[in-house]
Amino acid sequence: MLINCVAYQDGRKLADLSVEEISDYVARPNCFVWVALKDPTPAELAKMQEEFNLHELAVEDAHHGHQRPKIEEYGDSMFVVLQMIEMREDGELSVGEMDVFVGPNYVLSVRTGAERGFQDVRARCEREPDLLRNGSGFVLYALMDSVVDRYFPIVDALEEELERIEGRIFEQSSSARQVIEELYSLKRRLMIVQHAAAPLLEAVSKLQGGRIPPVCSGMQEYFRDVYDHLQRIVRNIEGRREMVTTAIQVNLAMITLSENEVMKRLASYAALFAVPTMIAGIYGMNFEHIPELQWTFGYPLSLAVMAGADALLWWRFKKAGWL
Amino acid sequence: MLINCVAYQDGRKLADLSVEEISDYVARPNCFVWVALKDPTPAELAKMQEEFNLHELAVEDAHHGHQRPKIEEYGDSMFVVLQMIEMREDGELSVGEMDVFVGPNYVLSVRTGAERGFQDVRARCEREPDLLRNGSGFVLYALMDSVVDRYFPIVDALEEELERIEGRIFEQSSSARQVIEELYSLKRRLMIVQHAAAPLLEAVSKLQGGRIPPVCSGMQEYFRDVYDHLQRIVRNIEGRREMVTTAIQVNLAMITLSENEVMKRLASYAALFAVPTMIAGIYGMNFEHIPELQWTFGYPLSLAVMAGADALLWWRFKKAGWL
Amino acid sequence: MLINCVAYQDGRKLADLSVEEISDYVARPNCFVWVALKDPTPAELAKMQEEFNLHELAVEDAHHGHQRPKIEEYGDSMFVVLQMIEMREDGELSVGEMDVFVGPNYVLSVRTGAERGFQDVRARCEREPDLLRNGSGFVLYALMDSVVDRYFPIVDALEEELERIEGRIFEQSSSARQVIEELYSLKRRLMIVQHAAAPLLEAVSKLQGGRIPPVCSGMQEYFRDVYDHLQRIVRNIEGRREMVTTAIQVNLAMITLSENEVMKRLASYAALFAVPTMIAGIYGMNFEHIPELQWTFGYPLSLAVMAGADALLWWRFKKAGWL
Amino acid sequence: MLINCVAYQDGRKLADLSVEEISDYVARPNCFVWVALKDPTPAELAKMQEEFNLHELAVEDAHHGHQRPKIEEYGDSMFVVLQMIEMREDGELSVGEMDVFVGPNYVLSVRTGAERGFQDVRARCEREPDLLRNGSGFVLYALMDSVVDRYFPIVDALEEELERIEGRIFEQSSSARQVIEELYSLKRRLMIVQHAAAPLLEAVSKLQGGRIPPVCSGMQEYFRDVYDHLQRIVRNIEGRREMVTTAIQVNLAMITLSENEVMKRLASYAALFAVPTMIAGIYGMNFEHIPELQWTFGYPLSLAVMAGADALLWWRFKKAGWL
Amino acid sequence: MLINCVAYQDGRKLADLSVEEISDYVARPNCFVWVALKDPTPAELAKMQEEFNLHELAVEDAHHGHQRPKIEEYGDSMFVVLQMIEMREDGELSVGEMDVFVGPNYVLSVRTGAERGFQDVRARCEREPDLLRNGSGFVLYALMDSVVDRYFPIVDALEEELERIEGRIFEQSSSARQVIEELYSLKRRLMIVQHAAAPLLEAVSKLQGGRIPPVCSGMQEYFRDVYDHLQRIVRNIEGRREMVTTAIQVNLAMITLSENEVMKRLASYAALFAVPTMIAGIYGMNFEHIPELQWTFGYPLSLAVMAGADALLWWRFKKAGWL
Ligand SMILES: [Mg+2]
Ligand SMILES: [Mg+2]
Ligand SMILES: [Mg+2]
Ligand SMILES: [Mg+2]
Ligand SMILES: [Mg+2]
Ligand SMILES: [Mg+2]
Ligand SMILES: [Mg+2]
Ligand SMILES: [Mg+2]
Ligand SMILES: [Mg+2]
Ligand SMILES: [Mg+2]
Ligand SMILES: [Mg+2]
Ligand SMILES: [Mg+2]
Ligand SMILES: [Mg+2]
Ligand SMILES: [Mg+2]
Ligand SMILES: [Mg+2]
Ligand SMILES: [Mg+2]
Ligand SMILES: [Mg+2]
Ligand SMILES: [Mg+2]
Ligand SMILES: [Mg+2]
Ligand SMILES: [Mg+2]
Ligand SMILES: [Mg+2]
Ligand SMILES: [Mg+2]
Ligand SMILES: [Mg+2]
Ligand SMILES: [Mg+2]
Ligand SMILES: [Mg+2]
Ligand SMILES: [Mg+2]
Ligand SMILES: [Mg+2]
Ligand SMILES: [Mg+2]
Ligand SMILES: [Mg+2]
Ligand SMILES: [Mg+2]
Ligand SMILES: [Mg+2]
Repeated sequence: MLINCVAYQDGRKLADLSVEEISDYVARPNCFVWVALKDPTPAELAKMQEEFNLHELAVEDAHHGHQRPKIEEYGDSMFVVLQMIEMREDGELSVGEMDVFVGPNYVLSVRTGAERGFQDVRARCEREPDLLRNGSGFVLYALMDSVVDRYFPIVDALEEELERIEGRIFEQSSSARQVIEELYSLKRRLMIVQHAAAPLLEAVSKLQGGRIPPVCSGMQEYFRDVYDHLQRIVRNIEGRREMVTTAIQVNLAMITLSENEVMKRLASYAALFAVPTMIAGIYGMNFEHIPELQWTFGYPLSLAVMAGADALLWWRFKKAGWL
Repeated sequence: MLINCVAYQDGRKLADLSVEEISDYVARPNCFVWVALKDPTPAELAKMQEEFNLHELAVEDAHHGHQRPKIEEYGDSMFVVLQMIEMREDGELSVGEMDVFVGPNYVLSVRTGAERGFQDVRARCEREPDLLRNGSGFVLYALMDSVVDRYFPIVDALEEELERIEGRIFEQSSSARQVIEELYSLKRRLMIVQHAAAPLLEAVSKLQGGRIPPVCSGMQEYFRDVYDHLQRIVRNIEGRREMVTTAIQVNLAMITLSENEVMKRLASYAALFAVPTMIAGIYGMNFEHIPELQWTFGYPLSLAVMAGADALLWWRFKKAGWL
Repeated sequence: MLINCVAYQDGRKLADLSVEEISDYVARPNCFVWVALKDPTPAELAKMQEEFNLHELAVEDAHHGHQRPKIEEYGDSMFVVLQMIEMREDGELSVGEMDVFVGPNYVLSVRTGAERGFQDVRARCEREPDLLRNGSGFVLYALMDSVVDRYFPIVDALEEELERIEGRIFEQSSSARQVIEELYSLKRRLMIVQHAAAPLLEAVSKLQGGRIPPVCSGMQEYFRDVYDHLQRIVRNIEGRREMVTTAIQVNLAMITLSENEVMKRLASYAALFAVPTMIAGIYGMNFEHIPELQWTFGYPLSLAVMAGADALLWWRFKKAGWL
Repeated sequence: MLINCVAYQDGRKLADLSVEEISDYVARPNCFVWVALKDPTPAELAKMQEEFNLHELAVEDAHHGHQRPKIEEYGDSMFVVLQMIEMREDGELSVGEMDVFVGPNYVLSVRTGAERGFQDVRARCEREPDLLRNGSGFVLYALMDSVVDRYFPIVDALEEELERIEGRIFEQSSSARQVIEELYSLKRRLMIVQHAAAPLLEAVSKLQGGRIPPVCSGMQEYFRDVYDHLQRIVRNIEGRREMVTTAIQVNLAMITLSENEVMKRLASYAALFAVPTMIAGIYGMNFEHIPELQWTFGYPLSLAVMAGADALLWWRFKKAGWL
Repeated sequence: MLINCVAYQDGRKLADLSVEEISDYVARPNCFVWVALKDPTPAELAKMQEEFNLHELAVEDAHHGHQRPKIEEYGDSMFVVLQMIEMREDGELSVGEMDVFVGPNYVLSVRTGAERGFQDVRARCEREPDLLRNGSGFVLYALMDSVVDRYFPIVDALEEELERIEGRIFEQSSSARQVIEELYSLKRRLMIVQHAAAPLLEAVSKLQGGRIPPVCSGMQEYFRDVYDHLQRIVRNIEGRREMVTTAIQVNLAMITLSENEVMKRLASYAALFAVPTMIAGIYGMNFEHIPELQWTFGYPLSLAVMAGADALLWWRFKKAGWL
């Protein structure tokens, strides 16, 4: 579906275009066309390939989707794959894709499987004509910046989730089963963000130093800013991943420890029953000559001995922390 | 066994050749010969070595098999080893090998231990004369592309398997023993794919930038595409391997947890039996003066006390989650 | 809040300035202005951006805060982010931030969220005019040196904490639960220091060799000293992190071992009760012909047998280390 | 002990030499001497140092032994350390050492602590005069190739051992204790092979590309073949090491699981005894009014109740998989 | 404390100097002064700083101590920090420090916190005038060589310790508690050696290839030898560290396994007591009509049944390996 198709010149909007007019404007000097597609049909993609003369391998990637984030140069144009991550209400992450084709005088962005669009990016660009004057390279920056900035709230949410779980690991009332399940789920989602951000980090590093693709030239400091934000995300996630691993190990230790405690209580209670049972057994023997059996207060005395022994045991178990 | 032996010129099939004619066509300018062997005998390999003047070390590798994936240059020709992975019906992976000798005017592909052939690659090449015009380098690309594309369904299958197992780790009804066994088997198979893809990734990186072997020149973007697909596979597997490791740790925690639960139930039931047994023991004592024994309703009362005590315990154990 | 605003020339203090005078002094050759802000308002930052002509991306970072430690060049000026770590009385770490803008003739330091200031750094600089003559680059060094030197007591404290915990892992009287909790907390805090120091290490490495930013030129040995101190910190923490991981594993082994010991004691005590109970049960049977029951000393003899059996068991359990 | 001392010219054997003749032949152009020593005495080494003018640091290494595999250049000559691994009948590995001094016109190989010699390498060289014509560099290649080829059967044996152990981890009848012990031993032996092959891999990489020592020039493809074989070994071992680590974790999970099962059985059997004991206790009470005691079929009925309760429990335990 | 202060020329000792004479000899061409200090006072260090014109940052490091091993250049002179490790009688390691200042015509070595001195190094240097002729660079080599050589017996001792512990992990009679404690201690000490050797390895690599500091020029092969020895140590320790980690995991598995065995024995013994107790309970019931009670041999028969049941159980438990 075509979302937008606009020509820009000198950092200002020139005109909304129909698809057929694109090739005319692309040919004009100092002018560039910015087209936004959402979940395009193969026919729409083929039309764009023709208008912008896109490389077949890049179009194939956009068509198949599920690409690894990357930045590729084809002659003087570029093909960029970004992953858009959105957190659903239940905390689960859904991964969409943003493919951007950038040439000296065009930007084609293809969004698939993501709910939120990039109207705000277009608005920002149109608000900053001084920067938009840099041409299609600035649009690429603005799109990447926006995608990366949207990672931060997700990373923050996962971070808070880890802190919440950490607090519960050491609480005796919390469900260990649930803690494990949440830690595993957290790790899984950290890996999703990692797989979106880490390859992009690697790719963006090539836009911020050394030889820079001509489309992006003069924008080095802006791409370095994206790089820096990505690095913050990736290192942050690396640290959290390690903590999740440690938390799983610690949780196992806590479970084993609680096993110890259950066993000690079990042993204590067993002893509290075993002593009276043993004494009762002794006075249940049928020997003819058991003097205690004739004592008037033999029975209450035996009960008292049982109670006394149990009280003594109780006290010692309490002191030893078994009960 | 010889599968095919064809000469091509200007991107079009020229003729099917007999083995003896090979050397004639190899000598012609602008023409190249593409030979496909399957499980060749030493004699067939020796014949090919003579026709194409292959290096003894490369032929030795093809002869022995079980090579690590690699790309080697010998003068102006290349020797490429690929691993072909096929999933059997029971999910087990079988590894075959594809050795490709490529010179300026020949391609010799030697397939061993794999069921599926490369007829589709030859068909694709003959359908795209514009690309086939690039010569033997394009055939090498097409073969590599096909081998790598066949990894994807396997990686997908392993991925789905992991998801299925993940779901079962936290289900109490599933067999922990089977979960462990499947996780181990999954890890083993992930390593097989890793050992096919990771060395190839490293090797292909040399075909997509910097100094490029002459046979592959002008095809840089195509080899970069193969590189990119391999990277997707390798990073994906790395991520899954780490999740399998985490899943094994989590599974251990779940097993230990279930041990705790078994122990708590064991303790609860033991207590439910121990209390009546203790009371019965007390009234089984042979003291002469136990007033309760003469009571008319002593027996039912004692039973009621036992039942009451057990009901109380039951209720407390339920509340504590031990039962 | 403005803390200080001073002009320096030839390594000596020239004058305290008002904010409006800054631009005048910045324009003078051989003179530089050093401004220190603490938790500035957006307006204060905007004023400084105007006076010093700071890059918008750098100001944005200073405004948002929570940056990763880094060193960025913008033309002939630099933007440096440092993390300041302070240990609270309960051992918890709080992380503040220090952003430094450095140009050929100015230094602007912006401190947020940290209690301790840098008056001592200014004092040191004014005490060493020979070094301060190097200009703004030396001030940058002095600030970085001070930040890094403040990491050492924290690393030392964490190190001592690890040693204290290590001692307690193998003591049987210590609480395993508390040991685990402290190890986890220690690991978490080690990661905080690591995330402050490791990225800075990477960044500082670019100031001590190869191409050096002009502002820092001639100070190479001083930045290498900072680099060296950071390396000491980072490697130290890496080592401790690994030991914490090992300590967690070892602690788990100790817990499991103590489970074994509890179980052996439980079994031993159960046996000590089971033997007399069994013997008593036997002599509680109602068979008509049990000769022992008529013996005059049957009862004390049975008690003696019980005691004897228990004594024997006790001795064997002691010998086997079960009790 | 001197094993061999032969002069070669143009790829053919010239003469067997006495030690005194060595220096004469070393001085001749186009001729080289190949000496093989086994467990030499210091005097023999000193003699060789004099004849070949060997560097004192290299001789020192050969004298002390227990070196890390390496390749060092001393001027126009080289010193190569290889580790020879031999598998004893009980599967244990013994590590010998092969030190090779190579100059433009000599090869001195010093073997210590290994049973198998290199007569086959000398025979191969003499069978291939075309290659031997390359001089001492080819002999070095042939020795390295032989040492590396001897690693393969060992790696294969360790691989098979892992597969055998893997099968037994999941068999309930196998001894977990033995499985652990074998996994540990396997890991230890994998590390031995790793420590022989990994440093050599690193060293050989310098003989197969970039600047090549003059002695080895023109043999690049042959050393690349050795490199490739080493890489296969090293990557293979890396993969196995990781699987052994996983197998140890999995084995721990299996042991914990079997603990669960033992505990469930223990609990089940305890219940089967506890129920009749409790019922018997009740009818062993001495209340005057227990109507059941007077029933004619009270006793068999009570036995039937016990049996019935146990049958019910048995059935439920079976269904729950506890028995 | 001043240990030695000697001037050398042409590889031979010239004279013992007083501190005041140092500057005179330092000024002479072809002559160098070698001063050795032990635990110097700040005043002694300041004096040396003045005599040799040492850089303040290097002197600061020597003054503070506890540096990371490193090699730094200050103009044409060098500052080297080495860690000296000594094993105490109880196996614990103590870490001392050796700081070496080296200029074209002086060597100043400062030893702190280590018992053993370097008289043997001075003696070796004076015995080898040919090498000492290389000047201060050779003295630096000789000191480093000596420090590194002293690591070997320590690494060997730790290695032997690991082997001793490995043997005990699988012995059932050994104390698991002690094994864990020793493994942890071993890991801790391996890390100490690692932290001494690994940074030095990195530093020395810069003295053995590429651009070499002028003081060390012409000694490349000697520094490469030090590098090689360090690499042996570092790789050796890496391998041992990994084995210690594996040993800890294996030990945990052994402990868990022994828990299983204890539990099985516990269950077996419980059953052996439960059966007679149950039978005795049955014949302790007070039913009026229990025919067996009247049998003449009822009592011995019941005992026989108990004994028989226990014998049967014993036999089955033995067969199943539970007892
Ligand atoms: Mg990835
Ligand atoms: Mg990844
Ligand atoms: Mg990180
Ligand atoms: Mg990490
Ligand atoms: Mg980190
Ligand atoms: Mg890490
Ligand atoms: Mg782990
Ligand atoms: Mg591999
Ligand atoms: Mg990989
Ligand atoms: Mg990995
Ligand atoms: Mg990964
Ligand atoms: Mg990992
Ligand atoms: Mg673990
Ligand atoms: Mg970080
Ligand atoms: Mg680090
Ligand atoms: Mg370190
Ligand atoms: Mg470290
Ligand atoms: Mg480390
Ligand atoms: Mg671990
Ligand atoms: Mg090694
Ligand atoms: Mg290694
Ligand atoms: Mg590998
Ligand atoms: Mg691998
Ligand atoms: Mg591997
Ligand atoms: Mg691993
Ligand atoms: Mg682990
Ligand atoms: Mg280290
Ligand atoms: Mg190693
Ligand atoms: Mg290693
Ligand atoms: Mg290692
Ligand atoms: Mg580990």
